[in-house]
Amino acid sequence: MTYERTDAGRGTLISNNSYACWLQYKKIANVAYEKKVKLFLETVVAAESSTVMETALEELQAAVSKMTGVHLEKSAEPPANHGIVLSTAAHFHQEEIIGRHVLAGLGADGYVIRSLATDRKKLLYLVGKTDKGVLYAVFHLLRLLQTEQPLEQVNIVENPRNPLRMINQWDNLDGTIERGYAGKSIFFENNKITANITRIKDYARLLSSVGINAISINNVNVFEAATKLITKQLLPDVAAVADIFRAYGITLFLSINYASPIQLGTLPTADPLDERVQQWWKEKASEIYRYIPDFGGFLVKADSEHRPGPFTYGRDHAEGANVLAEALKPYGGVVIWRCFVYNCLQDWRDRSTDRAKAAYDNFKPLDGEFLDNVILQVKNGPMDFQVREPVSPLLGAMKQTNQVLEFQIAQEYTGQQIDLCYLVPQWKEVLDFDTYAKGEGTTVKSIVSGSVYGFSHSGIAAVSNIGNDVNWTGNTLAQANLYGYGRLIWNPELAAEEIAEEWIVSTFGNEPLVTAMIREMLMESWSIYENYTAPLGIGWMVNPGHHYGPNVDGYEYAVWGTYHFADCHGIGVDRTTGSGTGYVSQYFSPNKEMYESLENCPEELLLFFHHVPYTHTLKSGETVIQHIYNTHFKGAAQVAWLIDKWRELEGKIDQERYENVLDRLQRQLKNAVEWRDIINTYFYRKSGIADEQNRTIY
Amino acid sequence: MTYERTDAGRGTLISNNSYACWLQYKKIANVAYEKKVKLFLETVVAAESSTVMETALEELQAAVSKMTGVHLEKSAEPPANHGIVLSTAAHFHQEEIIGRHVLAGLGADGYVIRSLATDRKKLLYLVGKTDKGVLYAVFHLLRLLQTEQPLEQVNIVENPRNPLRMINQWDNLDGTIERGYAGKSIFFENNKITANITRIKDYARLLSSVGINAISINNVNVFEAATKLITKQLLPDVAAVADIFRAYGITLFLSINYASPIQLGTLPTADPLDERVQQWWKEKASEIYRYIPDFGGFLVKADSEHRPGPFTYGRDHAEGANVLAEALKPYGGVVIWRCFVYNCLQDWRDRSTDRAKAAYDNFKPLDGEFLDNVILQVKNGPMDFQVREPVSPLLGAMKQTNQVLEFQIAQEYTGQQIDLCYLVPQWKEVLDFDTYAKGEGTTVKSIVSGSVYGFSHSGIAAVSNIGNDVNWTGNTLAQANLYGYGRLIWNPELAAEEIAEEWIVSTFGNEPLVTAMIREMLMESWSIYENYTAPLGIGWMVNPGHHYGPNVDGYEYAVWGTYHFADCHGIGVDRTTGSGTGYVSQYFSPNKEMYESLENCPEELLLFFHHVPYTHTLKSGETVIQHIYNTHFKGAAQVAWLIDKWRELEGKIDQERYENVLDRLQRQLKNAVEWRDIINTYFYRKSGIADEQNRTIY
Repeated sequence: MTYERTDAGRGTLISNNSYACWLQYKKIANVAYEKKVKLFLETVVAAESSTVMETALEELQAAVSKMTGVHLEKSAEPPANHGIVLSTAAHFHQEEIIGRHVLAGLGADGYVIRSLATDRKKLLYLVGKTDKGVLYAVFHLLRLLQTEQPLEQVNIVENPRNPLRMINQWDNLDGTIERGYAGKSIFFENNKITANITRIKDYARLLSSVGINAISINNVNVFEAATKLITKQLLPDVAAVADIFRAYGITLFLSINYASPIQLGTLPTADPLDERVQQWWKEKASEIYRYIPDFGGFLVKADSEHRPGPFTYGRDHAEGANVLAEALKPYGGVVIWRCFVYNCLQDWRDRSTDRAKAAYDNFKPLDGEFLDNVILQVKNGPMDFQVREPVSPLLGAMKQTNQVLEFQIAQEYTGQQIDLCYLVPQWKEVLDFDTYAKGEGTTVKSIVSGSVYGFSHSGIAAVSNIGNDVNWTGNTLAQANLYGYGRLIWNPELAAEEIAEEWIVSTFGNEPLVTAMIREMLMESWSIYENYTAPLGIGWMVNPGHHYGPNVDGYEYAVWGTYHFADCHGIGVDRTTGSGTGYVSQYFSPNKEMYESLENCPEELLLFFHHVPYTHTLKSGETVIQHIYNTHFKGAAQVAWLIDKWRELEGKIDQERYENVLDRLQRQLKNAVEWRDIINTYFYRKSGIADEQNRTIY
Repeated sequence: MTYERTDAGRGTLISNNSYACWLQYKKIANVAYEKKVKLFLETVVAAESSTVMETALEELQAAVSKMTGVHLEKSAEPPANHGIVLSTAAHFHQEEIIGRHVLAGLGADGYVIRSLATDRKKLLYLVGKTDKGVLYAVFHLLRLLQTEQPLEQVNIVENPRNPLRMINQWDNLDGTIERGYAGKSIFFENNKITANITRIKDYARLLSSVGINAISINNVNVFEAATKLITKQLLPDVAAVADIFRAYGITLFLSINYASPIQLGTLPTADPLDERVQQWWKEKASEIYRYIPDFGGFLVKADSEHRPGPFTYGRDHAEGANVLAEALKPYGGVVIWRCFVYNCLQDWRDRSTDRAKAAYDNFKPLDGEFLDNVILQVKNGPMDFQVREPVSPLLGAMKQTNQVLEFQIAQEYTGQQIDLCYLVPQWKEVLDFDTYAKGEGTTVKSIVSGSVYGFSHSGIAAVSNIGNDVNWTGNTLAQANLYGYGRLIWNPELAAEEIAEEWIVSTFGNEPLVTAMIREMLMESWSIYENYTAPLGIGWMVNPGHHYGPNVDGYEYAVWGTYHFADCHGIGVDRTTGSGTGYVSQYFSPNKEMYESLENCPEELLLFFHHVPYTHTLKSGETVIQHIYNTHFKGAAQVAWLIDKWRELEGKIDQERYENVLDRLQRQLKNAVEWRDIINTYFYRKSGIADEQNRTIY
């Protein structure tokens, strides 16, 4: 966990706070606390041996050494009075410490941590269902130490809520990252795997420490060079990466090109019903598993934004996915098939087509057609990771089809890791949303955990926000989103504040003032970003292509199905059944009635569902136009407030991270002022309605 | 003049109509005409020898052979009864044929063509002031043959109106072309000069045939690789290109990087008042002239759009240009200094800055400060080659400073050689514009010809529209702009129709129906393009960056100083002195009063000079908003009409060129429909005023 940027951008081994993220493991400053915990830190015993168990031991020893100076001796014998026991449930037989029923209740990646503290004895037991559970337990214990929790009464049972807890890298083989805001890829350069294995290992540590158990390492848009990842030209190097992740309990996936049988093979077709194609994929799977015996499977973007897919051959998504699933099945692999399918050559004049409806329309009719080792990956909203969207109606709508929810940690539409935007509150809203798919209480989190419909595979995936910047995420505070993502999908009941606080203390140390200040900044940040950008759920008012900064008409006359329909009278997209596109009918009752009704529609989504005049009065008493002005003046002012807040931290945290964030906040202010002035000017010019408070609009 | 596209994009020598442009030299089909002209085509004598004279002979022989099958024998003796005499004035002593006063009246590149036709004799005399004049006379004679003019009574005296008749290539060393719409560079690839010398020679022929006498071969934006063109690494290859052009009477220039002393030398500065810098440029000039003894000089874009320049050192443009001029002076070289200087980081909120004023404000105060071998190159309009702009007020405003006018043949803002836009009518409007700089009749053409102020150097330059596409210009009909540019600047009195007709006959043969049809298409094309794009001189409603297709707000909130200020009430930029930016005051009276007055301002420029309500009534009786709707519906319909017209030519011209143009017209229609619908929808939504004719607006 040590790194220095060199001219070549490669890592060398010196310590760096930015790089260490939340795994700082600083020497414990609280002498009384250190003294108490040291009593537990004499020896450690691992009941059995495995790669992951070795990792668990190493992590524990290295962190303890850094935090306390103690060299935690590895012992062959269980500690008599002081020490730590690592074990899988199968090898743990001290029923008086942890009862059999407790261990029997552990899920796949679950674990128990229990302490036995008497005057004579200070013992800690970390027992996982498997060795991965043990590793998670170690990271949990280290988190307790970092946050200075007492160890005397520890009695923790943890089971991750979601079976699949995945990260999607959108890294290209040339080293660029699609929607990357923190440098180049740590995985690829010059169409090869990078030589910087240390960096990949450190990434595995970060992910594993928050419970991530799967990763796809290449962009879902698979172009020529990346197509070759599943050939013997690159598989040996991919296998080396898989080895690194395996040691941290993380399974490796690859994104594949649906036209591979043509581009890599000699076939004239990639038709999934063609026997030669079926055979080709079977042989390919067999080849991949020779290199990577626990290969996770394929992540597939097909018939989406010009990527090839089964439509070319008149086949549907189920037929398209099943050919891959058949090939992977003998080895336990799965196909993760993305539902981000829509008409990306829409005519803006065509009011009958509504992109929001596309995923549901494309996939819902196929429920039951997919093989059991296919999972559909559904973005949280029906559009594309906007700052505010309703929950995708496809979530929960397919009762016989495995589903995975897709988030985006990369801040494509939420400030690009220049602007501060802590996303955990947004994700929590999605997870807590009640779909009513199976009556009240059918929340998104209960669907994707697999519990509602008994999915054989399910969970959550998210697009990564990291690159080879020293601090991984561009803006240091954006580390909180990677951390928060892992923690939240492990346990969606955690509060956003709680996660923020854990992250701050682990990252900046245990200083109450620093913690309070940064927590407040994080917790306000999504709302601030929403204030100065897209009002009332309208979205898409960004510069086309790169998606940073305001451009109200940037997507208005485009092929992407992304319109606001603002005219001199009003704004918004009528998606009601009564007079609009009928999108609301994709929801279960009573959600569909709620969105259909202008009165009951949540106001933060008003313009997503309704076209209203600028003079429409909101519950606050403001008109829509005045709300636009007010939120935009407020949002920019709030960014200035963020800067003031942050300045108070100078000297209280290290200068490097202080300046990194200050620089980003100053750029954010410039961006917020631009948003404020362009949005306000655009709507003032269009509506002709003056600001009630007579503030400057151009 | 023969070419075939191969896989590598290189030329091989087979015949191709598209490639030959207006130098087709097809076998004369008119038997009677051919019989008559053959009487003149027995022998040819050249009174003296030079590289250019050799070129003239070669061109004549090759073309005559193709057109008539006659091998025109080169003779050492003057022809007794049948033949052609090529001579410079100094060597021509047959006063009974051409009087001494006639020859004495010839300007630098002038020539006389006279025939002597009796029953016994058929003689043609082509006498140039210099050998270049002879070459121009040969191309003139060949044009007469291609257009089947009788030779018996020829008595032509031609002097080009403009001394400098230049082409600017915007070619980059990596082979791309800035604002290139016809393939890659014919000059550069992989940071070297291309190996395809044949293609460069054929380009020299095309240019020389219409009287071009100067060329700069690299982009005015000089980046790293191109900076090295003036080093011994690349000068030998540049010299080889200069050799090719020299044989066709064309002088070679290079665009240079103002920071060369730093980037190529070891100096820490490029300050023009620093003696080391002055010495560096002197040595550099001396080095260049060792390779290219008749090197034309430097074309310089400095302190413009982020290119380095004298401002860095607190020096003005005159000081910046003069250091280069001093270095070139001993060798007869000149500095062409571009006036495209403005604040390209403008704040859109700032209404006091007006980009249109920038060139005048920057350069006018420096009148008289520039050395005699500096020429200021001024774009035709104050903005940047929009479809409609007023004439730059800087033209004629500097009485003691050499000026060159800059046009853009490349259709950056006028359809990118997809859409048809014959630009000669636009250029003629500029040339005929009366600046009143020295009283009535001080037209732009009289200023840039040098006659008004007695400039030591003056003329016209234009950005080329060619690339390595087989047909040079993407759209075959765009060849007319390259041809027309050369012909018009040779003689600005030529009518646009006349030039069009010459070009059509030379290019497609002498078919009256074809000629009439294409002439009509060309002559309507600018107006059609204006109809469906930017109304009433407003400009800039294009997609940022590439500049193709509509985007009304694309440049509205940008840093480029390019705004329309449309709101729900009206549109336009107030540039009056009374209430606006005061730009109109840069014009001489009575132009300034004309533009100042809402009533007298030419309506095609109404929105360039005035902000008016949508309900403002035009002289036609239409309101501005109705004019916008009407012209846009009309413009798109006119493109459909162009297609109908062109379809009538199927079978009447070769299929290759027929299909090339048809394809472009079909793409133009798509573009025109998009312009029509987006512009109309934008203004309908903004104004709320319905189309009187109730046509479809979205």
